[in-house]
Amino acid sequence: MKEKIYDLIILGGGPAGITAGIYAARKKINALLVSKDLVGQVGKTSSIENWPGTEKISGIEFLENLKKHLEKFTIEIKEGEEAILVNKKEKFFETIVSSKDKYFSRAIIVATGAKPRYLRVPGEEKFIGRGISFCGTCDAPFFKEKIVAVIGGGNAGFETALDLIKYAKKVYVLEFSPELKADSVLLEKAEKSDKIEIILSAEVKEIKGKNFVESLIYQDKRFQELKEISLEGVFVQIGHIPAGECVGNLVNFNAKKEIEINFQTNETKTPGLFAAGDVTSIPFKQIVVAAGEGAKALLACEQWLKKSN
Amino acid sequence: MKEKIYDLIILGGGPAGITAGIYAARKKINALLVSKDLVGQVGKTSSIENWPGTEKISGIEFLENLKKHLEKFTIEIKEGEEAILVNKKEKFFETIVSSKDKYFSRAIIVATGAKPRYLRVPGEEKFIGRGISFCGTCDAPFFKEKIVAVIGGGNAGFETALDLIKYAKKVYVLEFSPELKADSVLLEKAEKSDKIEIILSAEVKEIKGKNFVESLIYQDKRFQELKEISLEGVFVQIGHIPAGECVGNLVNFNAKKEIEINFQTNETKTPGLFAAGDVTSIPFKQIVVAAGEGAKALLACEQWLKKSN
Repeated sequence: MKEKIYDLIILGGGPAGITAGIYAARKKINALLVSKDLVGQVGKTSSIENWPGTEKISGIEFLENLKKHLEKFTIEIKEGEEAILVNKKEKFFETIVSSKDKYFSRAIIVATGAKPRYLRVPGEEKFIGRGISFCGTCDAPFFKEKIVAVIGGGNAGFETALDLIKYAKKVYVLEFSPELKADSVLLEKAEKSDKIEIILSAEVKEIKGKNFVESLIYQDKRFQELKEISLEGVFVQIGHIPAGECVGNLVNFNAKKEIEINFQTNETKTPGLFAAGDVTSIPFKQIVVAAGEGAKALLACEQWLKKSN
Repeated sequence: MKEKIYDLIILGGGPAGITAGIYAARKKINALLVSKDLVGQVGKTSSIENWPGTEKISGIEFLENLKKHLEKFTIEIKEGEEAILVNKKEKFFETIVSSKDKYFSRAIIVATGAKPRYLRVPGEEKFIGRGISFCGTCDAPFFKEKIVAVIGGGNAGFETALDLIKYAKKVYVLEFSPELKADSVLLEKAEKSDKIEIILSAEVKEIKGKNFVESLIYQDKRFQELKEISLEGVFVQIGHIPAGECVGNLVNFNAKKEIEINFQTNETKTPGLFAAGDVTSIPFKQIVVAAGEGAKALLACEQWLKKSN
């Protein structure tokens, strides 16, 4: 049996993957896009207000627009499947998906994104987009004059807290360990704000509310005491889990398990294997950045395909 | 007189500058955006079909959406002015604009874009968007089954020709000098296509037509003879002129006069001076790439502002 060999397989159906797909289709590259679902990080976003030129759109509607745009062109899409493992076989890549089917290609763009790390406490899933957020840059403006908490006392947590004080009335920062891990420049800025209150040794136990977040329960680990804070917003900033395992044999990861790329060309250490968006070491996890990175990766990949035959 | 000092001045009102502006406003950075006009490269584009999620939009309408989005937020905009010179004065930047007014800031994002180099022949200006294009990646799909010419026998010209053969019926490549400058891999690909015809020592003299391009007149420089080609599209690929002169004292330029940046953070060689989009050495000149770069530059600049005080 002779296997079909695509020029390119794109892994991921978020902003980076779909943008790469649109560009690939317009370039008439013989490409396959493999996408688990249309949910991911963006699909869970109740309202996007920083996609340039669009004042407000829901995450689902935004992804539907992307998908509709992609489907206007001729490109093969394999939905409902996820890449489990990518191997390099001589001149080709072999992509094994969840159904165990195998696909072959000359090049790969990995755009499988990342998931924010969850607290895994009662109420968390329920209130995503209803008071719980994983992105201060995206959602701080929704919390004007409100009381909010940031979970996580690292750099991401304090950057989020400093974003929030421009809008919120009061910002709690809860850190699990007995000390803070953020850079001192950020801590100094935070100390200057009378809106920020830091709570150490705090283990979040539950997020409560009816339709929207109303309070947060944490355990003060020093005294084994349960405490409750009334608030309307909770920003979870305890890290991300990038979804780059399937290419683990072919790339280098940084300490955060993000795929290391050449920031100019989106190349990884394996020729023909490119990566774009939140799965990579690009420092800014934003939709418009991921979309731009998807286009960059495709255009660099196209040049590579032209030159490598 | 005490001068007002902004945290940030953004130079440029295209996709990179406006995206940086939207992000700056949402971060409540005390910023000024200086923009000559809303035309630029994008404004001259008759139809954009590769902005993710938007199947089709005119350049003007796209820019109007961007501007409307920006104006939803609180940000100072100085329209109708262009930065002439940026100086570094101790801890601040001084930006001198066309009216000779001066503005001061702690940081700068240069997003002044680039202009394609024009042929400067009769008919060229008239038929922009009516058969004349400066971007194969953007416009090749409009030329299905048509006869087109690419002006310029360098890498950009041959990449454009290779894009075009997927759509067009016939592609002439006209090169001014007696030999081609493109990489041999591209030339080999071009030779394999029976759609491509190369014409050397050709000096374009005029683009003719009624409402749309109908023919091209060139001089065969070997025989001083005028020749005419009937066609419907002309892709001008003779270089770009990046608009980075105003920061010439503060940045390094590459051979194409593009501002050299750190591709991860959009930093230039001067701390506090960032650059984004077509004015930079980023290899791909696309709207979605420029928008992503604008967001990246702003987020890196914001981290710098937080840390530098």
